[in-house]
Amino acid sequence: MFFDRFKNFKSYKTETTPCRIKLSSNENPFDLPQWLKDRIGEAVKNIPFQRYPDPTSMELKEVIADFYGVKPENLVLGNGSDELIQLLTIIIGNPDKPVMYPVPTFPMYQVSADIVGKKKIEFPLDKNFQLSREKIGEALEKKPVLAFFASPNNPTGNSFDRALIKYVADRGVFTVVDEAYIDFSDKEDFLSEALNRKNLVVLRTMSKIGLAGIRLGVLLAKEDVAKEIDKVRPPFNITYPTQVIGRIVLSDGRQVIKEQVEIIKRERKKMLSELSRIEGVQVFPSDANFVLIKVNDGNDLHKRLIEKGILVRNMSHLPYMENCLRVSVGKPEENEIFIEVLKELVK
Amino acid sequence: MFFDRFKNFKSYKTETTPCRIKLSSNENPFDLPQWLKDRIGEAVKNIPFQRYPDPTSMELKEVIADFYGVKPENLVLGNGSDELIQLLTIIIGNPDKPVMYPVPTFPMYQVSADIVGKKKIEFPLDKNFQLSREKIGEALEKKPVLAFFASPNNPTGNSFDRALIKYVADRGVFTVVDEAYIDFSDKEDFLSEALNRKNLVVLRTMSKIGLAGIRLGVLLAKEDVAKEIDKVRPPFNITYPTQVIGRIVLSDGRQVIKEQVEIIKRERKKMLSELSRIEGVQVFPSDANFVLIKVNDGNDLHKRLIEKGILVRNMSHLPYMENCLRVSVGKPEENEIFIEVLKELVK
Repeated sequence: MFFDRFKNFKSYKTETTPCRIKLSSNENPFDLPQWLKDRIGEAVKNIPFQRYPDPTSMELKEVIADFYGVKPENLVLGNGSDELIQLLTIIIGNPDKPVMYPVPTFPMYQVSADIVGKKKIEFPLDKNFQLSREKIGEALEKKPVLAFFASPNNPTGNSFDRALIKYVADRGVFTVVDEAYIDFSDKEDFLSEALNRKNLVVLRTMSKIGLAGIRLGVLLAKEDVAKEIDKVRPPFNITYPTQVIGRIVLSDGRQVIKEQVEIIKRERKKMLSELSRIEGVQVFPSDANFVLIKVNDGNDLHKRLIEKGILVRNMSHLPYMENCLRVSVGKPEENEIFIEVLKELVK
Repeated sequence: MFFDRFKNFKSYKTETTPCRIKLSSNENPFDLPQWLKDRIGEAVKNIPFQRYPDPTSMELKEVIADFYGVKPENLVLGNGSDELIQLLTIIIGNPDKPVMYPVPTFPMYQVSADIVGKKKIEFPLDKNFQLSREKIGEALEKKPVLAFFASPNNPTGNSFDRALIKYVADRGVFTVVDEAYIDFSDKEDFLSEALNRKNLVVLRTMSKIGLAGIRLGVLLAKEDVAKEIDKVRPPFNITYPTQVIGRIVLSDGRQVIKEQVEIIKRERKKMLSELSRIEGVQVFPSDANFVLIKVNDGNDLHKRLIEKGILVRNMSHLPYMENCLRVSVGKPEENEIFIEVLKELVK
């Protein structure tokens, strides 16, 4: 009786089948270098674990502010951007006002709305996975208070039309541009918009660039907007180890991350080109650290890849994603093996 | 306009004035021994930070289950019990059904209700800070779906009447017994009730027994209840370092924690006895790792203690807590200094 509301609730699904090659979670495939991990181990063993962490995460925020070229006052930190998505879903507008987002996209917008009990306005992307003005117009008629746009979008990989995102914000909807994958894109980001508007914020994450383990999401906004959101953030949501590790990696390890991102971008280009030459595989453009492919039988291919020790993400359960698999860009040798195995399996 | 709902929102307040002696956050005053911290540093430096943590936290849950003598299936883990309190406030019953809790108590129940926009039924404790059947009866008439009871209660330090907590659960309200301070109490806990009832769960935390820094809260419940709650838990809410550190401390460091808790209990007894002999200071009974005192001018004493390098928690802003200060039990030498300084200041 207490959980009736969740009888048909679809939780966020992740794949954890242990495989030799893991290309399923859009992680950075490269570990941190040992000298940096030694520095982390040394710092962590000196943490006074019995103490609460700094509720403002100030030292970490200063490093992140410098990383993005903003001020600490522009930031709200989350236990992953998951927490920030849920927080925004809860607090923006009255609980009875709906949230809009395109589909297919990152499932957390739907999951958060369902948990909170907020009405959802889901509208489809067009056949190129792009936003359409017509569908956005229809969504706006339902008077949403909040909109989520993942750009580059997950799982499709493409970036959305900037003008259409702005159009939604111009209509007075509180607009969240989730730029989880922006580090791999050469398109313009929404950061300066976020710093100058009262109803547009940007989400970033450390999860795609090498720090998924420490759960660190970042919201960037105009100072007064960030202040309002920070006011309702759980007081000790960023653990002491995460504050310490984040600070070290984003300062001492900044060059390491940049180089790893460059390798991933080069590898993506190579993968896109090789995939486009495989018969029976349709590959979509990508500005992210993964590529989306469509095959004849996605469920079967997914299973057979696992048998070969390769885990990719089966997207078939999401709307408009029939027979689609999402493949994270791995290390060069992992990508080569994946391409070889794929060629064999679709033959 | 987007944040109108939070115009008068009172965030959770914590005190962070740097002081030589910190008795303000009910932390365990003792650090972990160096051998254990070395083991932690060694383990942390081998974490593949680029990978997401185990979404089920299974290895950690096995250790925690053993720690409490339950099964992993009885557990839901949170990023501190703060996260579990907020999650329960969101999910239990329909959003328009109210939540009940006594005052004064841990402010997070009020904060969570306000963030979610849930109606609150606050009812006063009696003059001994005990639950009263009459006030509970009045609260139940307003048809709450959810009840929070911190027992031992923060900031009063006493344990609540078991029969009255059971009475609320028997009336069909989903009852959360927050046992954050139970490790310092000799009273019976609600664990076996939680493992056997469909509408009563227990919250525990590692924050008071030496691990506030890693943010680890635990919900204990009947398997099917735990399963329903775990379904809506954010998928990666426990960071990789917290999973690793929690596992090490709660297995290899178990004896250390037990010994520290015993010292804290002995020190509390000493403090209670010494405080009771100071004129101008009223001291209340405590089953927790802190003591509550009432003085002539709480705000003034709080300020003057800070001038002497001692930080305690000023409770004057909470209802029914005029001139009350909450003092965490510190290390023996810290407690001695506190008592000496207090004697001087109230003279």
